[in-house]
Amino acid sequence: MVGVAGQILARAESLTEAQRGPAAVLDALERLLRNLLARHPGVTAIGVASAGQIDRRTGSVVYAPNLDWRDVPLGARLSAALGRPVTVENDVRAAAWGEFRFGAGAGAGSLVAVFVGTGVGSGAVLGGALWRGAGNVAGEIGHTQVVVDGLPCPCGRHGCLEQYASGSGFQRRLRAALTAGRPTRLAVLTAGDPAWLTAAMVRTATEEGDAVAREVWADAERSLTMAVANYVTLVNPEVLVLGGGVIETVPPLFDVVAAGVRELTTVLARSVRIERARLGDWSGVVGAACLGAPAS
Amino acid sequence: MVGVAGQILARAESLTEAQRGPAAVLDALERLLRNLLARHPGVTAIGVASAGQIDRRTGSVVYAPNLDWRDVPLGARLSAALGRPVTVENDVRAAAWGEFRFGAGAGAGSLVAVFVGTGVGSGAVLGGALWRGAGNVAGEIGHTQVVVDGLPCPCGRHGCLEQYASGSGFQRRLRAALTAGRPTRLAVLTAGDPAWLTAAMVRTATEEGDAVAREVWADAERSLTMAVANYVTLVNPEVLVLGGGVIETVPPLFDVVAAGVRELTTVLARSVRIERARLGDWSGVVGAACLGAPAS
Repeated sequence: MVGVAGQILARAESLTEAQRGPAAVLDALERLLRNLLARHPGVTAIGVASAGQIDRRTGSVVYAPNLDWRDVPLGARLSAALGRPVTVENDVRAAAWGEFRFGAGAGAGSLVAVFVGTGVGSGAVLGGALWRGAGNVAGEIGHTQVVVDGLPCPCGRHGCLEQYASGSGFQRRLRAALTAGRPTRLAVLTAGDPAWLTAAMVRTATEEGDAVAREVWADAERSLTMAVANYVTLVNPEVLVLGGGVIETVPPLFDVVAAGVRELTTVLARSVRIERARLGDWSGVVGAACLGAPAS
Repeated sequence: MVGVAGQILARAESLTEAQRGPAAVLDALERLLRNLLARHPGVTAIGVASAGQIDRRTGSVVYAPNLDWRDVPLGARLSAALGRPVTVENDVRAAAWGEFRFGAGAGAGSLVAVFVGTGVGSGAVLGGALWRGAGNVAGEIGHTQVVVDGLPCPCGRHGCLEQYASGSGFQRRLRAALTAGRPTRLAVLTAGDPAWLTAAMVRTATEEGDAVAREVWADAERSLTMAVANYVTLVNPEVLVLGGGVIETVPPLFDVVAAGVRELTTVLARSVRIERARLGDWSGVVGAACLGAPAS
């Protein structure tokens, strides 16, 4: 529960058990919210930050590959069940809005926020409003191309940023290295299962001089810096926010990217203020709540 | 002179003799406008599309490398001399606005326009308004990086799009090839002086199988496609307009870039309508006039 000043007033959490299918997830979410609302009946509106592409009008999740959801009527279901207006926004974009309203970008006129975690996503606030794009799909920086004819991406294209600088990208590259029979400390750190690989492990192995890890990490720094710098050059935002699990668990990465962005952007866009995300895991919740609130 | 429907009502032209210095250019421009206004005294406002970075408040040209201008009070000088309000906008951005108001993007809600000529520039119209950026320098696509540690750019960085896909980039590459003693048809076509090189010559030599030209042209197609596709993926505009001398003088380039952009953008951003610029050399004039008009 989020107050008018962006403060968290109450919390309730449950895991999204996507493997049980959308109906089970919606049931669990509804139960969670019913309990919360029973204790806080004064809540006037509900904002949901969801993975995937959202239909703004209906609040449905059109497509969320990570959840394996297609056309799930998230907004309609919750508003019917809970008797409150429900606003659904893409989670990354909601997080950008949260950072803009009450986080690292509070008070700014424009902001670009890039979140590096399992995937890489972004949101932009321009002239005080979230820029969603003509088809509500703006900001997919994870699928901008950073290497011509580069690594294949599950999206069907090649050389997407997400293959070089994200948790899922790191795992895919470790799998490829193991398949190729390359020796690496990462095999030990993950007990042989690339699904356990974290950004912190890649960084640790890099410092230990591991060749595979060094390659992966150097590519991550370089491609992330380039993609974010180009974004800043094109948009010229007042503030650039960097967040997400990879940025948070490997603190030096922020400094490398921030310094690189200043070096690679045009002289005049270089005045951008570069900040770490401040709301952590709660940026999406705060952002969605603000977007859902009638006053906002 | 531009009418309320974006139509050209009267024209007067003179060369910008930048080598004579800003004072001479301003004198010539003032003379030209005095003559025009004497014949059309009903003109209520003046819009100027100028190369370089503009101070929006004062209408001064802060820095225009191509003219070798720094802090030239273009707006103040003209409005004092001519007794009309003067609005100065960067030429590329004015051209984007012209295409949005009365060209290829008329009726759209959002647009990205990329102009490829001596340099590469762009302008974006988002939510019906020109997006200028926090520091008035948004849209510098020519200085987004397309090759890590790529060719040096006069801007001081490496791998900028402009070095691979622009008239000045083509000339610089021909100079490098000649210095390296590489044989090329382009030496003949330019009579040995790279300053005479045009995009059409590069294309012609490519078709004749010239190795240097093929390399230069392939890089141009590939880097322009990548940079524009990434722009579209990030911004998700309704319309993408491609224009400028290089696009206009080598008609097949439009089709290559348009097809490539569709291939490289995310599935959902791919619905972008891709158009050739329609106003040609006049897009900047029409755009600046619209921006200057009190009603707009």
